[in-house]
Amino acid sequence: MTADRFAPTPADRFSFGIWTVGWQGVDVFGPAVRPPMPADRAVRKLAELGAYGVNFHDNDVFDFDATDADRDKRIAEFRQALADTGLVVTTATTNLFSHPIFKEGAFTANDREVRRFALAKVMRNLDLAAELGASVYVCWGGREGAESGASKDVRAALARYKEAFDVLGQYVIDRGYSLRFAIEPKPNEPRGDILLPTAGHALAFINELEHPELVGINPEVGHEEMAGLNYARAISQALWHGKLFHIDLNGQNGPRYDQDLRFGAGNARGAFWVVDALEAGGYDGVVHFDFKPPRTEDDRGVWDSAAACMRNYLILREKVRAFRADPDVQQMLRDARVEQLAVPTLADGETWRDVAGFMPDIAALAERGMAFERLDQLALEHLYGVR
Amino acid sequence: MTADRFAPTPADRFSFGIWTVGWQGVDVFGPAVRPPMPADRAVRKLAELGAYGVNFHDNDVFDFDATDADRDKRIAEFRQALADTGLVVTTATTNLFSHPIFKEGAFTANDREVRRFALAKVMRNLDLAAELGASVYVCWGGREGAESGASKDVRAALARYKEAFDVLGQYVIDRGYSLRFAIEPKPNEPRGDILLPTAGHALAFINELEHPELVGINPEVGHEEMAGLNYARAISQALWHGKLFHIDLNGQNGPRYDQDLRFGAGNARGAFWVVDALEAGGYDGVVHFDFKPPRTEDDRGVWDSAAACMRNYLILREKVRAFRADPDVQQMLRDARVEQLAVPTLADGETWRDVAGFMPDIAALAERGMAFERLDQLALEHLYGVR
Amino acid sequence: MTADRFAPTPADRFSFGIWTVGWQGVDVFGPAVRPPMPADRAVRKLAELGAYGVNFHDNDVFDFDATDADRDKRIAEFRQALADTGLVVTTATTNLFSHPIFKEGAFTANDREVRRFALAKVMRNLDLAAELGASVYVCWGGREGAESGASKDVRAALARYKEAFDVLGQYVIDRGYSLRFAIEPKPNEPRGDILLPTAGHALAFINELEHPELVGINPEVGHEEMAGLNYARAISQALWHGKLFHIDLNGQNGPRYDQDLRFGAGNARGAFWVVDALEAGGYDGVVHFDFKPPRTEDDRGVWDSAAACMRNYLILREKVRAFRADPDVQQMLRDARVEQLAVPTLADGETWRDVAGFMPDIAALAERGMAFERLDQLALEHLYGVR
Amino acid sequence: MTADRFAPTPADRFSFGIWTVGWQGVDVFGPAVRPPMPADRAVRKLAELGAYGVNFHDNDVFDFDATDADRDKRIAEFRQALADTGLVVTTATTNLFSHPIFKEGAFTANDREVRRFALAKVMRNLDLAAELGASVYVCWGGREGAESGASKDVRAALARYKEAFDVLGQYVIDRGYSLRFAIEPKPNEPRGDILLPTAGHALAFINELEHPELVGINPEVGHEEMAGLNYARAISQALWHGKLFHIDLNGQNGPRYDQDLRFGAGNARGAFWVVDALEAGGYDGVVHFDFKPPRTEDDRGVWDSAAACMRNYLILREKVRAFRADPDVQQMLRDARVEQLAVPTLADGETWRDVAGFMPDIAALAERGMAFERLDQLALEHLYGVR
Repeated sequence: MTADRFAPTPADRFSFGIWTVGWQGVDVFGPAVRPPMPADRAVRKLAELGAYGVNFHDNDVFDFDATDADRDKRIAEFRQALADTGLVVTTATTNLFSHPIFKEGAFTANDREVRRFALAKVMRNLDLAAELGASVYVCWGGREGAESGASKDVRAALARYKEAFDVLGQYVIDRGYSLRFAIEPKPNEPRGDILLPTAGHALAFINELEHPELVGINPEVGHEEMAGLNYARAISQALWHGKLFHIDLNGQNGPRYDQDLRFGAGNARGAFWVVDALEAGGYDGVVHFDFKPPRTEDDRGVWDSAAACMRNYLILREKVRAFRADPDVQQMLRDARVEQLAVPTLADGETWRDVAGFMPDIAALAERGMAFERLDQLALEHLYGVR
Repeated sequence: MTADRFAPTPADRFSFGIWTVGWQGVDVFGPAVRPPMPADRAVRKLAELGAYGVNFHDNDVFDFDATDADRDKRIAEFRQALADTGLVVTTATTNLFSHPIFKEGAFTANDREVRRFALAKVMRNLDLAAELGASVYVCWGGREGAESGASKDVRAALARYKEAFDVLGQYVIDRGYSLRFAIEPKPNEPRGDILLPTAGHALAFINELEHPELVGINPEVGHEEMAGLNYARAISQALWHGKLFHIDLNGQNGPRYDQDLRFGAGNARGAFWVVDALEAGGYDGVVHFDFKPPRTEDDRGVWDSAAACMRNYLILREKVRAFRADPDVQQMLRDARVEQLAVPTLADGETWRDVAGFMPDIAALAERGMAFERLDQLALEHLYGVR
Repeated sequence: MTADRFAPTPADRFSFGIWTVGWQGVDVFGPAVRPPMPADRAVRKLAELGAYGVNFHDNDVFDFDATDADRDKRIAEFRQALADTGLVVTTATTNLFSHPIFKEGAFTANDREVRRFALAKVMRNLDLAAELGASVYVCWGGREGAESGASKDVRAALARYKEAFDVLGQYVIDRGYSLRFAIEPKPNEPRGDILLPTAGHALAFINELEHPELVGINPEVGHEEMAGLNYARAISQALWHGKLFHIDLNGQNGPRYDQDLRFGAGNARGAFWVVDALEAGGYDGVVHFDFKPPRTEDDRGVWDSAAACMRNYLILREKVRAFRADPDVQQMLRDARVEQLAVPTLADGETWRDVAGFMPDIAALAERGMAFERLDQLALEHLYGVR
Repeated sequence: MTADRFAPTPADRFSFGIWTVGWQGVDVFGPAVRPPMPADRAVRKLAELGAYGVNFHDNDVFDFDATDADRDKRIAEFRQALADTGLVVTTATTNLFSHPIFKEGAFTANDREVRRFALAKVMRNLDLAAELGASVYVCWGGREGAESGASKDVRAALARYKEAFDVLGQYVIDRGYSLRFAIEPKPNEPRGDILLPTAGHALAFINELEHPELVGINPEVGHEEMAGLNYARAISQALWHGKLFHIDLNGQNGPRYDQDLRFGAGNARGAFWVVDALEAGGYDGVVHFDFKPPRTEDDRGVWDSAAACMRNYLILREKVRAFRADPDVQQMLRDARVEQLAVPTLADGETWRDVAGFMPDIAALAERGMAFERLDQLALEHLYGVR
């Protein structure tokens, strides 16, 4: 049928975390169901599927306690796969959450030695990230939090969190790296409450940094939806602040455990508005997927789910563009006065004096209909593909 | 028994919204169950109970379509009650959500005339607020949102939202009022998704304003908990930013409709940490309650629930102070190295060079226990009153 | 365009509550935005749109305190509209939640007089329901609950709830009515916790009744999703028990206030599986919509949203049928061994002795892939309309 | 101090799962932080702390793939520890969720061989359970579910689920074991949606079994609260049905990942009502804790958290009894007419004819206050320990 127009190419700039297709299925209730996947295999397979780039944690490529020789060998294999396939390292990150040393946090661990080690671990991987050409460095503080109230002094923790970004910002500047940081918020899991729980909290935090220009956010669909928040709106607000440095697309079914479903699964309507928000807002970063192939899947299922992430994005992109180009939609947007919101409330040169005492036709405004249901139904029919 | 030490006095600086005790019980499924309460009656009764101040919407005092004469009469009665009782107007706000004209928003309504009228309505009440001595002006944008994706251009809406605060900030400056604004975030209800859904989003937004120093936040217990977020942490982050201008205390049982239970009801452990965060963070504003006496209550129940808000705060304040003063707690905080988090990660004069390559005793740190369960159990026993 | 095949006809057996299109927009934060709608107008407009039937509360047709003459007049107008249009009364119900008398419950109110009055009110409307030809009588116990723990003895409340259905069951039998009851569960709102909070709790309750055969359930999309539950699974379990007597279709975005969006809005993927579950399970009742046109809409918006409920159902029905008829889907269902689940675990004549000690090829079963991602992607592409 | 009266003894009948204190801290984001704990060590330590009994999965005692010799050795060690300490095996269960073979379910796996193996695995452990004197056999179907709509035929799955309980019921009867089954519901995690998601769904399911008398439920605090449901009400409804065969106490903070906090942590007010519901409802089973010591804890923290579960129960039990014995509470219960709910709505000998047309004093009932806020405040003050 219509498969071709939804086949991804590197021009679409899709990227994946090595840890996504490499997830072995370990969860709280059971061990691995799939064998380990070397980073170079992930690269080769993703390239076959049409991806553009990859993101990696240091310990996706080599083990936490790898010897230098092991480390070099695994990095060399990874680089070779990149060279062979043309896949780009768009993004990198540090695993500051798996090893037991980080069980109580990394940048905001109560123990100062852990914090110092965390900085060192990030710096070492920043070198590798820069060397491999990454332009974004994601920071997900998965263990930066607490299960109980007194165990963490939140204001002190924010001060230490700020300190970490100030130190790392200076590191990047001093090293001359063209890397920018993207903070990935999450409300909870694996900690009871995580610091910087939503896109908003992270955006607010950035304003306190010494180099706020170096730091933006990397909101994830599922993380915002775990708090019942609207992800499309999160990225729109981030774009408004000029801070949408990266995105993590996947699927989730509302407040519950972090599902990391493939993009498109979960909140299907939400996904439509996500693509619309990215298109409308002029997002120019990579389109990154951070999902986990369910534990029911074998190796074939892993690649099927990865391919579907990209395919669903392309399907939705076509739909979103058709929606915005549809004359009926454009008429309905006018009926809903959506574009009127772009008109400043005060005309050029007006001040508060010009609206003080302003009295419109209250009865008429009270009775007006907004035509939102018709407009939304048109959007839904574009999602359905029946227009 | 021990009632006396939990009896509020004006020195405790407790305040209530007129609309709280005045709520008649109208909800989506049923009409009023209690008669209207004139603002002056609310003032007199709250004073009897030991409150310090009140907060009011313009239309708590006079109707939306009151004639000037009616308006003056109702304000005079309100003022008289204040004068008679010594109750202070600590805070004021504008009702921009009840009248059908605001059904699609106020500051961010698609219709420009609504936005202009909203500004005018606020300015008029700012005059009254200033005249009555309020120092904080709360802005809850309850209808600033949407149920559907295309009906609201989020980036344009944020631009208009910013414009409103820029205009109103200028108004306050030009008028010489010593009023500061406090934005009250809420994730949803009565709109499907509300702009600035959490404390974090509002804090981020403020940084884009022309007069950010004039604007802080007014987070509400229930609003944050509707998103599954930890309210004590929200106020701690706001304090860290220097932006906790006001608080709305009440009770909620997690993600569901906005319950507005009396403070103490709902998340009882959360309430303990809220009071602890306020005490520890040096919050010096009024302690404001924004609750609704359940529809099951008659007039006596209204005042019982209002009194209980204050009483519960005082009980929790005593507990929190005892917790922090308890030598066993202090020892356990040391065992948990909580105070170590206040020590900068880099020593004075150190740079990233001093931590690059830092390698602690990994095995020892991996094995260390944090003593958080013991610490949290002590907190719980203080809540229980068994220590 | 494809409009014609999605135009509803009475053969589709779509029905609406009079209170849905008649909702005036009163919520906790604002008054009515639309004028009252007489029941007869609702009937005439719904007939124009292609509906088959209606459901009504007694007080949708006449006021709580109507005189007998008023009541008769309003019923006569309602009947005339039914006669003129051919619309059928499929279902009826009693308003036991709006009047202040029911603020603390009806069948389970602590006050016995309220319980007795509630029974009388239902019986009177059962007469009207029978007279108008309804075959299902819905019971939503919206106020049967509590905000606080001691105010309701849950076991006593369940005993009274049972008593109510036992009395009403006997009433229907004695009167010779061919009416069956359908309990509508809801977890909360307007009460903090409502009795029989989910489809499961109601199904369990029914087994304790004197006439369980007379009572089934009427699960609502939004009510189950407010608890984060999967509605399609709720109706599948109800069908398995032979207890799906009625359905309330609408839209919701997870745990939050009761949104009552039009069917199709909200959880779009969920809606696909809902229609699939109804088709697959042989549901033969009416397809009923219980939604609220958002407060932003005027009269035209009301009818647009009502029409869209039916249209979306027909669109999804076509998709679901295409999905099940698709040979690729059928192959993938085989790959996923879905049909194998219909094969009893024990063969005919086998007992536990035949499986005791059973040892399959563990390694092979551990490695097997389920092909669920491929299967789910096919379903999603049917929803998208790209297959 | 008041420690003594909260020290548990075997007479309190507290029990723990071996897997609770034995949890090594593996989660989706990190590996084990604590060494494995042999079952016999868990038994000895729990006995020291004052526990009465234990619950175990087969694979808590021996590995999935243990040889018969290994199995016998580990069981012997376990038995010796039981004999040495006097601890009782109150309950047993089967691990049908960890091994990759169960990744898609056990009793309801699509693959029939998995279902047959699951039955065999349960039967083998039922023998051990009976031998060790357990009287309850818990069944948590953690993997019985799906992430996607078509991968599971829910009605067929329920039929297989029923078949499993019918077969196992017959097994227990034929073997002459005095064991009863307790189904443990959970809404999600580790599967997207789990069959029998709440206490209600499980109670409904039981009515379809061949031997319903052999099967009850084992509701868990956190599992119900993950769906936003009130656990105290769940156990009250289960008691009303005569089906509360076992309880799993722990702590949770609303809809999010399964936290398994120690009992008392999480929803502190909820815990008060849980103990009240158990006391009031005459629950006579063991008081079982199913929690996980957070990953931040070392061995000492593990035992601290286990001890705190019991201590908190005893503290709350004292409070609940004081609450019910408090004359002010008793008066307020009368004011709230709580006991009136125990009075049948129809008097002895009355039929529906006696209430048809019943008309109370509507105005008086509409105005009545319920005194619920006063009553609830008394309960809260008992929780606080200030009465």
